[in-house]
Amino acid sequence: MADLSTCPPLTRDSVYQARELIKSHVHLTPVLTNATLTTLASTPRSRESLRGTEWEGREPARPTVRLWFKCENLQRIGAFKVRGAFHAVERLKSDRAWVEGGGMERGVVTHSSGNHAQALALAARESGIPAHIVMPEISAAPKVAATRGYGARVIFSGSTSVEREAMADRVISETGAALVPPYDHPDIILGQGTLGLEFQEQVARLMDVAAGDDSSSHDLDARFSWAPVLQGDSKVSTGSEAKAKAKGLDAIVAPCGGGGMLSGVALSCEDTGIRVFGAEPSFEGADDCKRGFETGQLVEKVSTLTVADGLRTPVGKFPWGVIYERRLVRQMFSVTEDEIKAALRLVLERMKLVIEPSAAVPLAVVLFNEDFRSMVEKEAGEEGWDVGVVFSGGNVALENLGRLFAS
Amino acid sequence: MADLSTCPPLTRDSVYQARELIKSHVHLTPVLTNATLTTLASTPRSRESLRGTEWEGREPARPTVRLWFKCENLQRIGAFKVRGAFHAVERLKSDRAWVEGGGMERGVVTHSSGNHAQALALAARESGIPAHIVMPEISAAPKVAATRGYGARVIFSGSTSVEREAMADRVISETGAALVPPYDHPDIILGQGTLGLEFQEQVARLMDVAAGDDSSSHDLDARFSWAPVLQGDSKVSTGSEAKAKAKGLDAIVAPCGGGGMLSGVALSCEDTGIRVFGAEPSFEGADDCKRGFETGQLVEKVSTLTVADGLRTPVGKFPWGVIYERRLVRQMFSVTEDEIKAALRLVLERMKLVIEPSAAVPLAVVLFNEDFRSMVEKEAGEEGWDVGVVFSGGNVALENLGRLFAS
Repeated sequence: MADLSTCPPLTRDSVYQARELIKSHVHLTPVLTNATLTTLASTPRSRESLRGTEWEGREPARPTVRLWFKCENLQRIGAFKVRGAFHAVERLKSDRAWVEGGGMERGVVTHSSGNHAQALALAARESGIPAHIVMPEISAAPKVAATRGYGARVIFSGSTSVEREAMADRVISETGAALVPPYDHPDIILGQGTLGLEFQEQVARLMDVAAGDDSSSHDLDARFSWAPVLQGDSKVSTGSEAKAKAKGLDAIVAPCGGGGMLSGVALSCEDTGIRVFGAEPSFEGADDCKRGFETGQLVEKVSTLTVADGLRTPVGKFPWGVIYERRLVRQMFSVTEDEIKAALRLVLERMKLVIEPSAAVPLAVVLFNEDFRSMVEKEAGEEGWDVGVVFSGGNVALENLGRLFAS
Repeated sequence: MADLSTCPPLTRDSVYQARELIKSHVHLTPVLTNATLTTLASTPRSRESLRGTEWEGREPARPTVRLWFKCENLQRIGAFKVRGAFHAVERLKSDRAWVEGGGMERGVVTHSSGNHAQALALAARESGIPAHIVMPEISAAPKVAATRGYGARVIFSGSTSVEREAMADRVISETGAALVPPYDHPDIILGQGTLGLEFQEQVARLMDVAAGDDSSSHDLDARFSWAPVLQGDSKVSTGSEAKAKAKGLDAIVAPCGGGGMLSGVALSCEDTGIRVFGAEPSFEGADDCKRGFETGQLVEKVSTLTVADGLRTPVGKFPWGVIYERRLVRQMFSVTEDEIKAALRLVLERMKLVIEPSAAVPLAVVLFNEDFRSMVEKEAGEEGWDVGVVFSGGNVALENLGRLFAS
């Protein structure tokens, strides 16, 4: 990893610079809307459905919400993780001392069994750099195959984090490779934050097209851009045509595992007026960042088997600094396993998109968390908010999906 | 249904006119590409994988194929069927005798348990016309609920086609409603054909953007349009940049059940030089159109339980006239149940799109049918073909998907 002393400051400007470094390597993923889900988000939950929850007996909130979805499930390797990985690699390559010291030949190393492993393998391959990926012996065979498929060398370790880190250390001492951690590093945070910049620009642009303000654009093109905005089974207005407020998103809700992406998105929104919220599973204490917000203390250990398997890790120190200490994330919200599954089902059945369970967590917050919904009702009023929801990835085995929805 | 004597002729021009009638009611669905699937389609199958097939022992074909996907799974109600339904309703509304005779009050009727039921219900609702939908008593509850959700009156019947038609006749005699059949009518064919026009124009446009010929377009917009073109986990070139040939599709492969959509797409391609191919399941004789091609005789009855449940019906007479008698479809190809499932899995896992099994049939032809593949190798040579694949719909219950891929 690039020496911390050479890292750019954690600012919105640095996210712009990160985008310049990675833009030829990553997809500008589409932003979609869906009339069915926007209607559902703007419809009060039934009193019945609140029974047995902490909001039982409360008057259901009546927020007005227009939803926009940033589809990182359609990103390369199927998840946003390539943004941080490419940024980390590009930053290393711009470090003269590292290159002259033979860094390109020594390569990069990480320990991950998930999307970061494939992301780093791909980023390294495109620069002709060796990638050493430490994976637990118990990793699913397709994940190992996919990582090798990107040309990486896979080294197996035990499955505890101590064993994995020990093996990574050994690889570093043997190869001299540079460590690229999955989330707890400024280069990773800034890379992931690029999705936030795109999201802001794309929504503003789509609102222009919708409002007919876009005199420059070719007709077919405008309809093409606009088409994904009208998805869903009823063609209701998104409401944006008639709005008097400044164009663009009012809020973004992003999932929070290690916090690399949430903190990057928060940086991308600094001083824009766009409120950033974090979404976590509540199962077995996976809501460590939310609990940290409540006590003011970073929670360092988490042990959970939430279905949102990308969000099982505790928040890292660098992300925590941005998310909590600098207060760039307004508030954290959590949802139950059933709520995650219900949101996932809606995306699969109504939007016809495959996302992984972790990616459904922010939508679950918007649809089901009454604290979030009553906050929006109060702050946004009748005019409502344009809320951006990050679909973080789409890597889920069909067998696992089948098991989740076995009736 | 509009009187046959007043129907426009089955020509490409009439498809353009149909588009004018329906364009404010349907989505211009996106066209996507996927580098992984394009690479797979252009890679020869292994000899091993041909074992046990009719091609065992043959040299695997080496076609060069660049794939483009028309995503009608992202269409309203989740399938292309709204195109024909809206066109049929708009044509009725333009029939003065029908309107003055009280047609708008009497409404429309059809018998369908599938996508056509919801499509007609939606089209009727948007014009304030009653819709009477005859469904078999054994229809899945969610389909009945969805059809009612669009405001239609659902009338149950027995499940044989005789019982369903008898009930539809009874509804017609009781209500005076106009019958809108699912595929065997010129208005339906012309409506479905509009997807073919869009497909041609979108691909040509995306090739322009890729080649940088698009001086008029806004930078962000161009990237946005282009972004979906680069999906997949490796950013290989689609090859289109360097091509000398005229821009656009070389071929379209569309699924064939009743043949309404295949014949409409064929009309949309008449005299364009774009070759149109039909794709069917082979299971239990579902390849009736292919068999019809071989004998020169329309096959009128089919009884199959292929997993591609949208393709269980035999080809209708009007579609047959276009597809076979006018030779507007070059050739029919069929695939096995396992090949359909393999293609479906690839779309779900690699493209992150939910499609229904019927929609995977054309891709299965391109990836697995050696007759198709060797034909492309021979005709397209090294330059290869840009092949358009129609994803016809995305309406599949998660429980059914889970069952399909239970390991």
